[in-house]
Amino acid sequence: MFDTVAIVGVGLIGGSLGMALRERGLARRVIGIPRRAETLAEALSVRAIDDGTLDLAAVSAADLVVLAPPVLTIPPLVEAMAPHLRPGAVLTDVGSTKGSLMRVLPPLLPEGVDLVGGHPMAGSERGGVLAARADLFEGATYILTPDSRARPESAARLAELIRSLGAVPVVMEPDLHDDAVARISHLPHVVAAALAEAAGAGAVPADVLRLLVAGGFKSTTRIAASSPEMWRDICLTNREAILAGLSDFEAALGAFRAALEAESPDALLSAFGRGKTVRDSLAPPTTAPTGDLP
Amino acid sequence: MFDTVAIVGVGLIGGSLGMALRERGLARRVIGIPRRAETLAEALSVRAIDDGTLDLAAVSAADLVVLAPPVLTIPPLVEAMAPHLRPGAVLTDVGSTKGSLMRVLPPLLPEGVDLVGGHPMAGSERGGVLAARADLFEGATYILTPDSRARPESAARLAELIRSLGAVPVVMEPDLHDDAVARISHLPHVVAAALAEAAGAGAVPADVLRLLVAGGFKSTTRIAASSPEMWRDICLTNREAILAGLSDFEAALGAFRAALEAESPDALLSAFGRGKTVRDSLAPPTTAPTGDLP
Repeated sequence: MFDTVAIVGVGLIGGSLGMALRERGLARRVIGIPRRAETLAEALSVRAIDDGTLDLAAVSAADLVVLAPPVLTIPPLVEAMAPHLRPGAVLTDVGSTKGSLMRVLPPLLPEGVDLVGGHPMAGSERGGVLAARADLFEGATYILTPDSRARPESAARLAELIRSLGAVPVVMEPDLHDDAVARISHLPHVVAAALAEAAGAGAVPADVLRLLVAGGFKSTTRIAASSPEMWRDICLTNREAILAGLSDFEAALGAFRAALEAESPDALLSAFGRGKTVRDSLAPPTTAPTGDLP
Repeated sequence: MFDTVAIVGVGLIGGSLGMALRERGLARRVIGIPRRAETLAEALSVRAIDDGTLDLAAVSAADLVVLAPPVLTIPPLVEAMAPHLRPGAVLTDVGSTKGSLMRVLPPLLPEGVDLVGGHPMAGSERGGVLAARADLFEGATYILTPDSRARPESAARLAELIRSLGAVPVVMEPDLHDDAVARISHLPHVVAAALAEAAGAGAVPADVLRLLVAGGFKSTTRIAASSPEMWRDICLTNREAILAGLSDFEAALGAFRAALEAESPDALLSAFGRGKTVRDSLAPPTTAPTGDLP
């Protein structure tokens, strides 16, 4: 589908992508271009790439360039690699926010390079290429935001590649994507971190809390174990949408506080009921039960 | 260990307990005493009990009585069954809050009946006896709060039974338990419900949100699918501790809001870092990665 794929930034997502491309034979050659020599060695050791270099100029060999570094570093990286990009190449990224990138990147690109933004809805609270898995994208939605100046066949080729990874490509407007992920991903990360912090903020000794930790705490705070650096950057690139989601969350939480203060059974029942209705609608229960409280 | 165990309230927890006792041969006979005939039929069909009745007087046959109905119904049930309790019997419950029960129940009991409160830290967002599993308690912490008037050997016998279920009995003061579970279980349920509600509160169509749902949203809001009735009751019995936890949570969330509004990379990094530190300390990461965002 593509001859040579260059993956710039070889962490969990970049590494998993390389692994999947190699295991499924979807590219003749996968080049890794991480920032650090240590990552290069790790990526080679887990067979996430065929070969690699720290030199951005290596993108000149690629007909598909995948940007998978921390999202805030993408614009300067594109600026630095632009002179080396081959005419006819497709450039994509895996950044968690799309609006600002789709505004900032196109003017940086040479003629004949097609930008098709991307965001695979898959990941893990464990970062780094050592956590990479070839099956990470299987069954995942994979958002694509093609630049209006890109040839339609570039988006089509990338979509085909994504289908071959076992994922489901979906074309979406960047700003709609950002509003949606603010509520479905970014706000949950903020809330999970605050919830973990609050668990430790009381007078109960950590040893006692640790004894009582069960499925409910584990699942609500699992993503609080994610990289603080990555989530700082994501928050900075999708600030307004997250703040809008946060306001709705504070309102929902305020209803709980009022119901608790008033000792109102009816208000508590409605508040829990509203949450259950949305949850059941957005993510219908699976059959497999999982360990949990009360 | 016990000859006849009566389980009053045969839902997820009561049913799983009956199943585990039967499969492991830990009691000669397990009687189920649900509130509704339909539940009795279901409990028999999934072999959670040997036999059953809707008549509370049947507790007279039991040397161990387990109370597993909704927590607010426990005091009136105990009042109703008290005349039928056999001298020498052990009475326990599986309620999610312990302080108020351990104050209210003892005066209701006849001489010679020993109250040993309990709370297994296991469960599921799926309720009801049809979701019961014999292995539900395996590896779980199981809190015991013996009444000061109970014979020590009653708590010891119950602890031994719990160990035989594969769980880990831990004796704890009721109020310490309640403070801890407010933060480790009850507050997460409130937050999960508010988070699910907020996801649906914006302008993004539900179909788009559904496409983008991935591991982060699923795990943070999983317990929002729990029974609103059960969580209403738990909130009412542990109101003050939950409100105290909520205040700490609001403070942690307020730091995120301030950091977002100020576009402060440092404040965002610290806030995510504080959450990660507590989470990593209370529930160290497992090796198995799970599907998730970014």
